[in-house]
Amino acid sequence: MPPPCRDNGPVHRSKERPVDRSITPSPSPPVSPPPGTSHGSSDFLQLNVGDAPVGGRADWLAQELRRAVADGRLPVGSRLPATRTLAADLHVSRGVVTEAYRRLTEDGQLAGRGRSGTIVVAAPVSAAPVTAAPTTMGTTPVDHQSLDHHHQPPRTPHPPTPFAAPPGPEIFDELRTAPARVDLAPGLLDLAAFPRAAWLRAERAVLTDLPSAGFGYGDPRGTPALRRAVANWLARNRGIRADPDEVLIVAGTAQALGLIADVLHRDGVPEIAVEDPGSLGARQHLRYWRMATPPIPVDDDGIRVDALRASGARAVLVTPAHQFPTGVVLGGARRRELMRWAADGGLIVEDDYDAEHRYDRAPVRALRSLLPEQVCYAGSVSKLLAPALRVGWLLPPPKYREALTDAKRFADLGNAALPQLVLARLMESGELERLLRLLRRRHRRRRDAMIAAVRAHLPGARVHGAAAGLHLTVTFGPEGYRGSDTDLAAAALTHGVKVHPLSWHAQRPSPPGLVLGYAARTPDEITQGVAVIGEVLRSG
Amino acid sequence: MPPPCRDNGPVHRSKERPVDRSITPSPSPPVSPPPGTSHGSSDFLQLNVGDAPVGGRADWLAQELRRAVADGRLPVGSRLPATRTLAADLHVSRGVVTEAYRRLTEDGQLAGRGRSGTIVVAAPVSAAPVTAAPTTMGTTPVDHQSLDHHHQPPRTPHPPTPFAAPPGPEIFDELRTAPARVDLAPGLLDLAAFPRAAWLRAERAVLTDLPSAGFGYGDPRGTPALRRAVANWLARNRGIRADPDEVLIVAGTAQALGLIADVLHRDGVPEIAVEDPGSLGARQHLRYWRMATPPIPVDDDGIRVDALRASGARAVLVTPAHQFPTGVVLGGARRRELMRWAADGGLIVEDDYDAEHRYDRAPVRALRSLLPEQVCYAGSVSKLLAPALRVGWLLPPPKYREALTDAKRFADLGNAALPQLVLARLMESGELERLLRLLRRRHRRRRDAMIAAVRAHLPGARVHGAAAGLHLTVTFGPEGYRGSDTDLAAAALTHGVKVHPLSWHAQRPSPPGLVLGYAARTPDEITQGVAVIGEVLRSG
Repeated sequence: MPPPCRDNGPVHRSKERPVDRSITPSPSPPVSPPPGTSHGSSDFLQLNVGDAPVGGRADWLAQELRRAVADGRLPVGSRLPATRTLAADLHVSRGVVTEAYRRLTEDGQLAGRGRSGTIVVAAPVSAAPVTAAPTTMGTTPVDHQSLDHHHQPPRTPHPPTPFAAPPGPEIFDELRTAPARVDLAPGLLDLAAFPRAAWLRAERAVLTDLPSAGFGYGDPRGTPALRRAVANWLARNRGIRADPDEVLIVAGTAQALGLIADVLHRDGVPEIAVEDPGSLGARQHLRYWRMATPPIPVDDDGIRVDALRASGARAVLVTPAHQFPTGVVLGGARRRELMRWAADGGLIVEDDYDAEHRYDRAPVRALRSLLPEQVCYAGSVSKLLAPALRVGWLLPPPKYREALTDAKRFADLGNAALPQLVLARLMESGELERLLRLLRRRHRRRRDAMIAAVRAHLPGARVHGAAAGLHLTVTFGPEGYRGSDTDLAAAALTHGVKVHPLSWHAQRPSPPGLVLGYAARTPDEITQGVAVIGEVLRSG
Repeated sequence: MPPPCRDNGPVHRSKERPVDRSITPSPSPPVSPPPGTSHGSSDFLQLNVGDAPVGGRADWLAQELRRAVADGRLPVGSRLPATRTLAADLHVSRGVVTEAYRRLTEDGQLAGRGRSGTIVVAAPVSAAPVTAAPTTMGTTPVDHQSLDHHHQPPRTPHPPTPFAAPPGPEIFDELRTAPARVDLAPGLLDLAAFPRAAWLRAERAVLTDLPSAGFGYGDPRGTPALRRAVANWLARNRGIRADPDEVLIVAGTAQALGLIADVLHRDGVPEIAVEDPGSLGARQHLRYWRMATPPIPVDDDGIRVDALRASGARAVLVTPAHQFPTGVVLGGARRRELMRWAADGGLIVEDDYDAEHRYDRAPVRALRSLLPEQVCYAGSVSKLLAPALRVGWLLPPPKYREALTDAKRFADLGNAALPQLVLARLMESGELERLLRLLRRRHRRRRDAMIAAVRAHLPGARVHGAAAGLHLTVTFGPEGYRGSDTDLAAAALTHGVKVHPLSWHAQRPSPPGLVLGYAARTPDEITQGVAVIGEVLRSG
């Protein structure tokens, strides 16, 4: 149900769209400017460009549009005027309108729908109206009142937070559904970039070409088309040479870890060593599937292989390209050391979760490319396209190939066919690599915004792992923060900002810190969220 | 790559389509009939209706089209003339062409693509050209040579068959990929009926409406939209009242069984009793997940509850609406007896795998509707829409709701979102019920064809469970067949026909029998396949 519309603001919906404006763009305003002003105005949202600073018209227009979406004047599904039309009405250059639309598209609030024009596709996540925070460009008219509102603790009593108890199995569901104005939890790419039109085109082609038998039961290892596409993708992007027959399509890295844990357990392996700090989520999955997870320290060169050797573990889960959550890259000497450990009979599970997102140099090669016999490689589209697709891939080492195929068969008889075939087309057509290039540019801007915001608002913090990925980690020295980081994360959530405390991801004592995702948020949101954290730090 | 075209037969492909014929249908033939004949002819495939018997023109045309698809003159992707055009060219009624197109559509070889016309979407599964066998209508011109070919053992040595050894974990993959001219293995609905256009329309709507956050991680229990749609579906079609919050979306019944087995194992339950005979596939899944599967006999009223009680098992897997493979319905007294067993603390796992496909009366109510506290209900779209979608649902009893949610979370974090949302639209719009009505009519015709063929070609066989479902079972008395049914299934496969031996599904000695799927095959294929089995029986 669309939110109620204001009486005095005409709303562009598909059925109410004024024909003269949308079908035939007016090269000049339909009426003369009102006397006494040289600025244009538009009936649309009763915009008057006289309200905007000359250097900040795009900012102004973006802010007006955000307000209109937030307060329901532009409900989801409504259509915006063509950029030429609105630019002509407002007496601004078309670039101003294009830029404003682009920003809301980047937010995920607008989407271009080809000949259908630009449509409102989502309201802000928070129920409260979101107002724009200053960008790092310094051209935004700062709305001090709204900023003050964001920085002050809300007047309602604190809601229960996911940080009240040690994290249980539901922790990520609790955190995901906790309301927040700015979600800086790590692990998400920019979801607004999902290529909806390309996906639909590929789906149409798949549905046209698929023989009827393709709707039946299939190979539990995945469709040949996707296994081929993944093998090609890994060759192009990760330096891995694999035969399509070696690829096992799975329902994301989550399923991959479960299958590996279960197969190792059946093989008499009782534990998989993990990096410390290292992903809480991965550890939860391994433990659910009966694996102990002895912690191995991570330093600035990555996992400490001497400690791994000393632990006696026969298998280890590592994130060599961009360690989670510290972001360190496994150093060259350390890689060789790990290889020697594996050559002596150890099994490496390589979680290559976000290696493609590297900003300052080419991605480091996967371990799998060097030691295929001892490395079980796991990747997924969750950081490339969308977690909601639940598609990933495993390259098992030969020793476990058959056992992992059985495990996948008896888990679910194989992934669903249609999304596999659609994804194969996007991979083979170059669409996914185009998306990745767009994401790298966009994510890099967001990372830069987060680093600038951390410098401005968290002066005592040290930044880790910002050269790649979708998140960074900050730690606080004793002079920066003396409390527990779960308390800090809880206070931030109370003030509307969602983050992970570093201690969630550590099994041994760690310095207080936060793991901050930037890829899914706009620079404005990032700046605003980090400012709130700074305020919480100072007031705590 | 399309097969080579014959030089003298023009092929309709999208780019080669003659404009005058396809865009503007000619109400009369473009040229006068050749002198000396009163029959029409068409350039298309050089058809001449003079070759057809007057009462069998649709049969003749269907056969010509099948031949053209089989030998590559009509490659996959090629477009057929409009029915009006071809009817006018051939001097036949439009109904003749429509009927011929319908038959190949039912085969899965053609598909209507709206304004794009009728397209060849699949070649026959077998590499050898398939020729039409006689229908039960008796109007088909019988091609004795081709029939003889089908009935004679091939001259090549026997290929290795999936029946050489007791069935292992790969058995269904081996059987699926074994080449055969006629696949009468049970478990498939008519895949040619998959509503491609409706699916694509719903997918477009989903992609238009979905907020960006919908591409992220979601509720591991499934999207609210599909859980609501499933609750409504179960209320309308299975007499089950369930809150959407009780519904757990899973990756098909296969995953449901694995999750249940794993949760019961964690709860200290070492075994799930199963019907005997009962599904080999289900038993394999339970055993992989560490459950023993003690067999409980099935008689004409369904599972023997006295034997279940005597077994001491605390959980049982049943198929009360249409027992697999015998097809018996759990009788009223037996239902009450099973309920009392459950009320004493037993857990019933109700696999409601094909209950919607009932031909002679309304489907029997699900056990879950009577005893929600003790019944874990499992259903899926594999017999309603397509196994390749890998979507099913569980209604756990309250005792195991949380444990099964955890199991699903740590299996794969939940099913993929887009197919769930598309399916929810098809369920809520009535599209799935429309499909089900079409399938019931079509499957019923196929069932009738199979019963007629069994009477004609397997005179010693007894037919079981033909009142519902997608398959029936035949057993042979001592006078009918004295060998092993795996030998019989192996011989049938050697002669190009795929079936399940009944003994695969039995843990204790059973009379020799075959489980025969009819829903996925045309009446012609069914007749042909059963005739081959009869020939094999007589020659064995």
